[in-house]
Amino acid sequence: MARPAAPALRIRRWSGGRWSEEPDAVVTEEPLQLSLDGTRLSVVMRTPGEDVELALGLMFGEGILRSRTDVDVVRISAEANERDSRDKVDGSIVESNEVDVHLATAPRRKPERSMLSSSACGVCGAVLIEDLRRDLTPLAAGPAVDPALLPRLVDQLRSGQGVFERTGGLHAAGLFRATGELVCLREDVGRHNAVDKVVGRMLLEDRLPASSTVLVASGRAGYEVVQKSIAAGIPVLAAVGAPSSLAVSLAREFNQTLVGFLRGDRFNVYSAPERLTSS
Amino acid sequence: MARPAAPALRIRRWSGGRWSEEPDAVVTEEPLQLSLDGTRLSVVMRTPGEDVELALGLMFGEGILRSRTDVDVVRISAEANERDSRDKVDGSIVESNEVDVHLATAPRRKPERSMLSSSACGVCGAVLIEDLRRDLTPLAAGPAVDPALLPRLVDQLRSGQGVFERTGGLHAAGLFRATGELVCLREDVGRHNAVDKVVGRMLLEDRLPASSTVLVASGRAGYEVVQKSIAAGIPVLAAVGAPSSLAVSLAREFNQTLVGFLRGDRFNVYSAPERLTSS
Repeated sequence: MARPAAPALRIRRWSGGRWSEEPDAVVTEEPLQLSLDGTRLSVVMRTPGEDVELALGLMFGEGILRSRTDVDVVRISAEANERDSRDKVDGSIVESNEVDVHLATAPRRKPERSMLSSSACGVCGAVLIEDLRRDLTPLAAGPAVDPALLPRLVDQLRSGQGVFERTGGLHAAGLFRATGELVCLREDVGRHNAVDKVVGRMLLEDRLPASSTVLVASGRAGYEVVQKSIAAGIPVLAAVGAPSSLAVSLAREFNQTLVGFLRGDRFNVYSAPERLTSS
Repeated sequence: MARPAAPALRIRRWSGGRWSEEPDAVVTEEPLQLSLDGTRLSVVMRTPGEDVELALGLMFGEGILRSRTDVDVVRISAEANERDSRDKVDGSIVESNEVDVHLATAPRRKPERSMLSSSACGVCGAVLIEDLRRDLTPLAAGPAVDPALLPRLVDQLRSGQGVFERTGGLHAAGLFRATGELVCLREDVGRHNAVDKVVGRMLLEDRLPASSTVLVASGRAGYEVVQKSIAAGIPVLAAVGAPSSLAVSLAREFNQTLVGFLRGDRFNVYSAPERLTSS
């Protein structure tokens, strides 16, 4: 029951004062029920595919699990049939609308950021960063990355994006070695989901923390993308769009190199610029 | 304790193979605790300002409240002081990190979409739309909108965006009359938040459903933006970016005119094109 990543439909197009009727493709967005040990956690809107990666990456970012060995089994349910993936937790593409992660241990952290209840006076950026200090460790120095490399990584990201070309509707996240080789590229209708999928892939391959890597993300760098990438130990985050104030504060606090507005041969560095050293 | 919408900081800029150090501004992102009748509901990352609009608009979109008269009082807490806005639920700009909405009645719907537990086999787009049929009514025919008007609305949106110009990091949502006059423009680091703020403003002014209006949104049109705007009775939604498959299905189901890729003098129409009639 595979759904195409970009369903075809007929639309009307207005251009230069005239109508035409044309075929078009849009990116698939479908809800996914995430469950933990049989209990429903939340519904995520996502582009189907790599759902196991998405679930594991998201739960890793939330601190619920820390490594592949924390996972006992992942159950994947489709509408009409269910299958047990006990022998195949490899993140391969399956169509499903529910992923239920069963842990081998108790959750490392309750499935809800403690900030949600940590402050009697509501929350603010400072409280939130204070709270994250309990979970995240500042990133160690290195690696050295040639600044001239970054623009080329965006080109690699774009050329690796198949569905984006047809629909213009997908965000992408690409993990690269510090020397520029692509490690993992994931696309999703949601910017956060693409990052979760990359992290989930690394978790499945036992490659976390992903030190000595560069994560390139389409779209903007908000708080969540920075938090997720720091949790995964990624020392350099480069976004095509703008960063937010909280993203900058968080990156500075945890010694992540945060790059924004990576376009053409230009970009801005908001934190830890010392990793970017011209050779 | 007002926080500037765009805090200044010093950054390093890479351009054409050279470094420079420059002042820069980034968009403010801060968490807001949303509570309902004293119970914590969720934390939303947002750009401070119009927090009452954001809270009310979001709760309206979730079906928790249906009109201003459902609201008894909105309590706004800042970090150091609290104030009771009993006499001033007008959505004016106040700095806060918690908004607690007290209802005059029981919530119209439990604060969680029922789809989260409606299906024994997880959720999918069809189930979700089926579920929304209980809450949403298809939009009536009209108004007639001149297609040549839409590109001009984007220009108006951009010229009304102050902080975007400086930071490149804000999403905007602008509500217009069918004849092109701006009714309400809101900006936020989150695309959904900007729409919630517009809807909250209309709720405060008792102008819902906002029939005979056009909502122009920067960024993409995903499921949530379409759902929120249909709930507010907005017959035409025009997005600068791409729509998703679920957004198109939802718009077609509820007879909303969904426009995407509104750029220059071009755009695509994905549903209910009959409202766009050249004069």
